Formats: sequence, C-alpha cells, structure tokens
Amino acid sequence: MQSFDGWMKATQGEMELALVQHLPPVALTPARLHEAMHYAVLDGGKRVRPLLVYAAGALFDADAAELARAAAAVEMIHAYSLVHDDMPCMDDDALRRGKPTVHVKYDEACALLVGDALQSQAFDVLADGGIDPVRQLAMVRLLAKASGSLGMCGGQAIDLASVGLNLSLEELEQMHRLKTGALLRVSVLLGALAGKSLSAEETQALDSYAAAIGLAFQVVDDVLDATADSATLGKTAGKDAADNKPTYVSILGLEQSRTLAEKLRNDAHRALEQFGEKARRLRELADLIVQRKA
Amino acid sequence: MQSFDGWMKATQGEMELALVQHLPPVALTPARLHEAMHYAVLDGGKRVRPLLVYAAGALFDADAAELARAAAAVEMIHAYSLVHDDMPCMDDDALRRGKPTVHVKYDEACALLVGDALQSQAFDVLADGGIDPVRQLAMVRLLAKASGSLGMCGGQAIDLASVGLNLSLEELEQMHRLKTGALLRVSVLLGALAGKSLSAEETQALDSYAAAIGLAFQVVDDVLDATADSATLGKTAGKDAADNKPTYVSILGLEQSRTLAEKLRNDAHRALEQFGEKARRLRELADLIVQRKA
Repeated sequence: MQSFDGWMKATQGEMELALVQHLPPVALTPARLHEAMHYAVLDGGKRVRPLLVYAAGALFDADAAELARAAAAVEMIHAYSLVHDDMPCMDDDALRRGKPTVHVKYDEACALLVGDALQSQAFDVLADGGIDPVRQLAMVRLLAKASGSLGMCGGQAIDLASVGLNLSLEELEQMHRLKTGALLRVSVLLGALAGKSLSAEETQALDSYAAAIGLAFQVVDDVLDATADSATLGKTAGKDAADNKPTYVSILGLEQSRTLAEKLRNDAHRALEQFGEKARRLRELADLIVQRKA
Repeated sequence: MQSFDGWMKATQGEMELALVQHLPPVALTPARLHEAMHYAVLDGGKRVRPLLVYAAGALFDADAAELARAAAAVEMIHAYSLVHDDMPCMDDDALRRGKPTVHVKYDEACALLVGDALQSQAFDVLADGGIDPVRQLAMVRLLAKASGSLGMCGGQAIDLASVGLNLSLEELEQMHRLKTGALLRVSVLLGALAGKSLSAEETQALDSYAAAIGLAFQVVDDVLDATADSATLGKTAGKDAADNKPTYVSILGLEQSRTLAEKLRNDAHRALEQFGEKARRLRELADLIVQRKA
C-alpha cells in the first residue's frame, strides 16, 4: 500500500488539476476576475479539506471524478472565505500562504467579487455531478448549510463579536464548531456520500470523527499561532494575541491545549472503528492535523 | 381575472411571507447576523425577479410552494449583491430603498458576512425543493451560473473596470447582460422549470423574452438615474454621471434611449407569442419594466 506521504502528495496533485479544470479559464472575460480567482485558489495550502473528502471517499470506494468534484467545491468555499477574511474590514491581513492576499495583489473590490464568484462556482461544480440526483441534492444542501449563517459565516460572525470578550471554553468551542468545524465536517460527509447513501450509524460515526478533528485543528492552530513564526506559518503569527482574541492557549494554556489535541486525536480514531482498514487515510489525517508544524 | 395590480400586490405579499419562511429565524445564534440578513432582504424593492418567477410559473401551472422557493432563492442572490455592491470598496452608497445600507446600519464586516450567508442560503433553499431531482439540480446550476463570474459577478467586474472608459454600445450591452440580465433571465427560467422540463423551443423563446426585458430594465434604469430624484428612486440619483460611468443615456442620449426601451418591450411581447394567454403576466411585467417611474 502507498505510504501516507505518497498518497497525500498524489491527492494534492490530483486536486490541483481538478481545481484548474473546475475553475473558469483565465482566458474568458472578465479575465482579471478569473485570473484573481485562480490566484486565490491554486498553488496554496495543505488542502486539508480535499484530503478529507478523498479519505472519506475511500471508505466506500467512491468514484474519483465525483470525489474531485466534491473536493473542488469544498476547497472553493474555503478559498473564498480566506479571501473575504483577509479583507481590511475583517482581519486585514496582507500575507496568506506566503503570498500577498488578494485585495493587496489586486484590489478590495476585486477580492469581494472573487469571493462571491468562488462561492457560486462551488455550487455550480457540486450540482453538476454524475451520481444519484437525490444524493447530489443532499450534498448541495449540506455544503450550503456548512457555508452559511448556521455554519462557517455564522462562526465568523461570532468570532468578530468575541474580540476583547472573555469567552468560556464552551462559547469558544461553539464558535470554532461553526467557523472551521462545519466545513471540515462537510468534507468528510461529501466524500462518504460520493460513494453511497449513509446509514444513521455511519453518519453519526463520521460526525464524531469530524467533530474531534475539527476541534483538534483549531486547538493546534492556536498553539501554532502562539509558538511558530510567520515564515513557517506562511501567515502573520501571534496575531490572535495581538488582536486580543480568545484562543485555546489563552484559556487553557499551552500544555493543556496540547493534551486536549492528543485526546481529540484518540477520539477521532475511536469514532472510525466500525470502518476498519478502509478508514486508514482518515486516521492518518487525524494524526497529521494534530502533529503538523504549520 | 385578477387585475395586474392586484396580482402584483398579492404576489409581493406572498413573497414577503416566503422570504421570512426561508430565512434563518432572527432568534437563532448569531442573532445580529440573522437580524441583518432580514434587514437586507425584507420589506424592500419591487420584487421584480420574484414577480418574473411567478409570472413564468403561470405558463405551466407550477406549484405555488416551488415557485415561492425559487423566487426566494433568486431574491436572496439579488439582495446579497446589493449589500456587497453598496460597500465602500464598491459603489460606497449609504442609501438603498430609502433606508441606510447594511454596512451603514451595521458595519462593513457584518455586510460582508450578510452577503456571503445570503448566497449560501439561496442555494440551500433552492436545493431543498420537492420537484423532480434532475430538474431541481438543473435549477441549482442555472442559478449558480447566473450568479458567478460568467453572470452577475462577472458583470460587476466589467462594470468596475469600465469606469472612465468609453464603452461601445456592444460592450455596454455585454456588461449589463451579465450584471443584471443574467439574474432576470434565470428568474424566468426557474419559474418555468418549476412547472416542467422545457423544450429547446420554449427555452429559446423565454431567453429572447428575458434578454429583451433585461436590456430594457437597464435602459430604463439609466433614464431614471438621469431624470428622477433620489426621493422617488429610494437611492442616490445622478450617481452614474457623477461617477463618470458609461450609460445608455450617455451613449444614445435620452430620446433614443426611450425609443430603444419601447422597441425592447415589443421584442419581449413578440417572444411570448407561442404561449398565448398564459403569458399574460410576463407581458404585463415587460410593460411595467419599461413604464416604471422608479
């Protein structure tokens, strides 16, 4: 069997091709907008969400083209949220993945439209799949809910409102469950659904896995923000503390945050027990999320 | 048969209920975001796009709940585009429908998230319909294409790039075909598709109708921007000239613009001939679009 690293690199390569294929060509009018959409999406990041889609797709031997489609849709939503998040009226960040952010490289109006158009494109791509149409519609609804005011956008709203407040651990968890957790969860579900309809038991197991890695992802993010440097992260480090944002590190401290991440990794592994060897990549991704250095 | 005015008022009333029903309740967390989403969508505008959905639905006796769903989805896309368009980095407008714009009433970050979340909500609502799932997926794809970089967002990008340029009449038409035309067209198509699958001939006739009213809508908008006052329009009048934006009036002059609007109204009527009496509301809407005073 392929090593995890080999699988990850191969999947990231496939993903880059799928994203190019599912974005409008730069040659089409308006060319500058399309160029900026490519800039925002391509050649960036670890592709954690696409990796989750593919890893969950392996559970039920999902078709590769359908996985590429679902993964591209989720990654476009993620990319649009970063573009809007970086804008001056939100986090006002000039650096992302080691490159100038979209509103710096282009301009603010362009960044606004890039995000808006990427969201539309994500739904266009996902709704164009070749699987059972009832299941495909369910996938569109899941992605829409994960993206909207009861998912990612809602989490960002809570995050903005929380600056300078003393959030409890529960409030912090709820914010992250929406802000980053919803999209990680839908990545797992879309990958599995690309393979087959899910039983209630399967959905519950995948939800438990996704909840655990979603929180772990954020805990580790907070630890890295507090301990790594900007060059390693490819974005401005120490920003949370500077912005007076509540984090796991500010509430629990560094050591307890690390212990929590380790506990969540074990929770994720346990949730996958019923899937046996086919859950190998999902298990390895949980390990990656907790052990990453950037 | 109900008068046009009676039908319009009844449909607008139905629409208001449908929008409330299809938006997340304000009581849900994050309440401020949900309140701002309601503020952006409810109690505003002539609801031209929903009226087109319902009028096209009458062609094939579409189910009322399905029409409400499609109309709500299109109107949420329209409302989100207005919220983002009004932001300082775009048109920087403080007044919309006679009320403070969302970023003025709330703040810029909130306006950004309101628009983003409304777009997700639109796709959630449309993907949740009760008609044939293959047709429903086609409707989702149509709305996504009409909203994205080859539709509305693309038109806005061309519009932004055109400030201060001497556009030809063809270039101006292409910009408006995307910026406002794409969403008007999809309103007509979604209404018809809520009733049944369309033959190529039916699609072509509805496309011709939509193209004509789409351009007419913009020509009349330009005429009103040049001739009406802000109180009548419920938004800042004379803005195009002040921003040095190319318009039909700046290229054709006032009288030729009015003649063009009248010609487009006749084109719209002619495109509907095959549908007979069932196209009555679509014909009346073409008249309304050309004859409106605000």
